Amino acid sequence: MTDMTGRTIGTGRLRAAVERFWAAAEAREWDAFAATLADDVVYDLPQTRERIRGKERYLRFNQEYPGDWHVRVERIVADAEGRQAAARTGFTVTGEGPEETRERPQELDAIHFFTFDAQGLITGVTDFWPESYEPPAGREHLVERY
Amino acid sequence: MTDMTGRTIGTGRLRAAVERFWAAAEAREWDAFAATLADDVVYDLPQTRERIRGKERYLRFNQEYPGDWHVRVERIVADAEGRQAAARTGFTVTGEGPEETRERPQELDAIHFFTFDAQGLITGVTDFWPESYEPPAGREHLVERY
Repeated sequence: MTDMTGRTIGTGRLRAAVERFWAAAEAREWDAFAATLADDVVYDLPQTRERIRGKERYLRFNQEYPGDWHVRVERIVADAEGRQAAARTGFTVTGEGPEETRERPQELDAIHFFTFDAQGLITGVTDFWPESYEPPAGREHLVERY
Repeated sequence: MTDMTGRTIGTGRLRAAVERFWAAAEAREWDAFAATLADDVVYDLPQTRERIRGKERYLRFNQEYPGDWHVRVERIVADAEGRQAAARTGFTVTGEGPEETRERPQELDAIHFFTFDAQGLITGVTDFWPESYEPPAGREHLVERY
């Protein structure tokens, strides 16, 4: 795959774009964050069926996000052939959620899917926030807990 | 990256392995399913902190899984450089969950991360099952619902 200048968009370039996206978000460096995004980026939250269209609104969503949060990247899967990536992150969130937890930081796992245009700009972000739950009975003979 | 025979393990080969994994699971073709797995495959469910070690136990976990389920693959992200992949799937599950829903199929989104050895066999599977929730107030000026 090549961009408009004829350079190949490789796996490493997609991985670097996802790294810049998260480093800029963590640093609240919104110009650097915006520089990773296509103008017509679409943000999807399938769990709430919410969608945000366009770089300007998506930037505001992130800038206005309530509470304090910090993110660390745990894994990036970068697919140059499919012009897409996936990431796992861990968030530490303070000041959101039920009142009794507002002073105590919460640890949240998140999963993100990205799509890219031919220039390597992010055209789509899809977030998932899976929550902990109790395992169903009947498989204790196969599993260990950690 | 090359396997023991010197062939490159490309993105397409990882993608094909994930496709075979899901096609075999959907068809309950357990020999074909097992053929995608390394002997020491580790299965992780971070939401319940459950772990299953080894091909034999992981096969039994899938063979013994209660209820009826069908899976369709929605996206595969295959990273040959990182020898890993991610997938999004949709499950239709009947006969599990609360009694009042046992006759009515449930639609569930799932996300899966895979790691591979040098031969392209799956060494790790990590599953996430994110559930629907109501969006928090305060961002209606930016989002649409779908």
